[in-house]
Amino acid sequence: MIRREDGAGGRYMTEFLKSRIFRYIESRAGEIALSDMEDSADFDDSYVLTTDSYTAFPPVFRGGSIGSLAVFGTSNDLAVMGAMPAFMSLAFIIQEGFDGDIFSRIMEDIANSAKMLELKIITGDTKVVEMNAGIFVNTSGIGVRNRHLEQNLDVVREYRDYPFRWVRDCGLRSGDAIIVSGSIGEHGIAMLLEREDLGFEMDVESDVRPVWFAVRDAMDAGGVVAMKDPTRGGIAETLNEMSEKSRVGIVVEEELVPVRDDVRAVSDALGLDVMSLANEGKVVLGVIPEMADDVLKALRKHDRNAEIVGYATDRFREVIVRTPIGTEKILPPPALDPVPRVC
Amino acid sequence: MIRREDGAGGRYMTEFLKSRIFRYIESRAGEIALSDMEDSADFDDSYVLTTDSYTAFPPVFRGGSIGSLAVFGTSNDLAVMGAMPAFMSLAFIIQEGFDGDIFSRIMEDIANSAKMLELKIITGDTKVVEMNAGIFVNTSGIGVRNRHLEQNLDVVREYRDYPFRWVRDCGLRSGDAIIVSGSIGEHGIAMLLEREDLGFEMDVESDVRPVWFAVRDAMDAGGVVAMKDPTRGGIAETLNEMSEKSRVGIVVEEELVPVRDDVRAVSDALGLDVMSLANEGKVVLGVIPEMADDVLKALRKHDRNAEIVGYATDRFREVIVRTPIGTEKILPPPALDPVPRVC
Repeated sequence: MIRREDGAGGRYMTEFLKSRIFRYIESRAGEIALSDMEDSADFDDSYVLTTDSYTAFPPVFRGGSIGSLAVFGTSNDLAVMGAMPAFMSLAFIIQEGFDGDIFSRIMEDIANSAKMLELKIITGDTKVVEMNAGIFVNTSGIGVRNRHLEQNLDVVREYRDYPFRWVRDCGLRSGDAIIVSGSIGEHGIAMLLEREDLGFEMDVESDVRPVWFAVRDAMDAGGVVAMKDPTRGGIAETLNEMSEKSRVGIVVEEELVPVRDDVRAVSDALGLDVMSLANEGKVVLGVIPEMADDVLKALRKHDRNAEIVGYATDRFREVIVRTPIGTEKILPPPALDPVPRVC
Repeated sequence: MIRREDGAGGRYMTEFLKSRIFRYIESRAGEIALSDMEDSADFDDSYVLTTDSYTAFPPVFRGGSIGSLAVFGTSNDLAVMGAMPAFMSLAFIIQEGFDGDIFSRIMEDIANSAKMLELKIITGDTKVVEMNAGIFVNTSGIGVRNRHLEQNLDVVREYRDYPFRWVRDCGLRSGDAIIVSGSIGEHGIAMLLEREDLGFEMDVESDVRPVWFAVRDAMDAGGVVAMKDPTRGGIAETLNEMSEKSRVGIVVEEELVPVRDDVRAVSDALGLDVMSLANEGKVVLGVIPEMADDVLKALRKHDRNAEIVGYATDRFREVIVRTPIGTEKILPPPALDPVPRVC
């Protein structure tokens, strides 16, 4: 029986993928295999491919919609490989009777999002179904090798051997700086407030936006060895994945992690860990220590909340948060998204 | 409000796409624009991209499953452009509680289907949702320019100017032969029999299979100027689309259209038009008349029911079926699939 946690982006999902998917269809076309669980996979020297189905409920929410989510979310999975988002497919599964005005709003968001990225939607599909499905959107994206990526890899290779042609989750080494590109948890909290009347009076919007422009400038600064966008499972999941794939530990200073006061307050009040909340317009970067300040400066032009939050260690699999009073706690990969269907 | 017919693959769907989708995101990367409604679109000289969401119910049926459908269906949308299916993404939306054994059966079909085509599934996504959705599968495919396509285009260009780099729906000219690669209507009838106990005792299986091998050999024979796989809406929809896009008429001899006796019997008994029934492993080809016999011979190595069923005329938009007694009837594009959620 397929369980909710099998698709929740956490540790159970990893087990699900290994036992139920990769054992049947493990495959690779270039350097990245399906089971590498990267954000995209290369199919020749110039291109990477990614896919994502969006089931966010409600489909229109504060700060965006399933339309902007589908374009930006998929483009972000390309950008964190160092690829420039270039082409996209768009597939709808729509419930019969779905509101036409909401659909138009979603299409407007898709059009504006694609325009912002100068990205071309070249093929599509529409299915209308009878059952209670609301609207689901799948976007598959193709990202292209570009001079920003090349320049970044050139800088990286001045410092160390980096045997990859794209920016990989497995690229971290002990001592590398961990940078978060902005404040975290806003998408998760925004979706929660859309879904439940929790009695909070607040103005949190989803952070859904493209990370490509910040990533591009970070790569121009150079020295970026790993990137991931902390969506389902938040930065807790992202840091654990980077640690596992790079065979390093990670230490994060809790007080350095950028969180808005109101997001922190709601999160604490509900007993949620802000580190596990979904984000839709942020990146976690691993950067060669000598380049960390330059990359931070580049990121802060896009978001002044970008911050160096910690560093990689040689203690494989130990992902630790250090509190302001100096105690340390393990940061486990979350099992479940606290807000289902946020992405 | 989104209506069932907006996603049914017929004439209402064309209106839906124009008024609700293309007006927002009309775009092209190469020669094929989104609004060309081709089966795939090129994003450089070597590659085409396509996407399809599969909502077939039930997910396992006589002759296949939503798994084989997702791999073969998407690969067929590449093949009818003349592209060799090469890479694929795989995205699941699964209802919480979905049967694990059925899921395994679907994964086995996906693995075997990909193996048959030597096609690489390189990236994926899994979402588990709470609502009544069963299972939906999206596959996006990338097809590659190949020597069979080049050879075919070389032969075509011995006979006429053909300004396209891929095999296009708009490539027909008056006089071209219309060939169907095998008997029609089996997928539609098989799905109908799975869904309803209609009291028929019969052994019709879905024809879900890859068309690439037959297409490849047809292109080696040469002279193929248009191809389309007649899925939703059947060959009625396909012939009308080819006629519209190529600005020609089409005449089909009813008695030449290959239909199994049992499929014809059920179809007649239920008042369905076999020409509108979905297929999942067939191709309709437009071929330069001088090459029609060679292409037919190549296709018959794969399916002895392949047949030259008619020809293109200069009477734009007139798609006509000629009966054995010599009367003619208009073949309109269907408005609705007679069996919803077959693909």
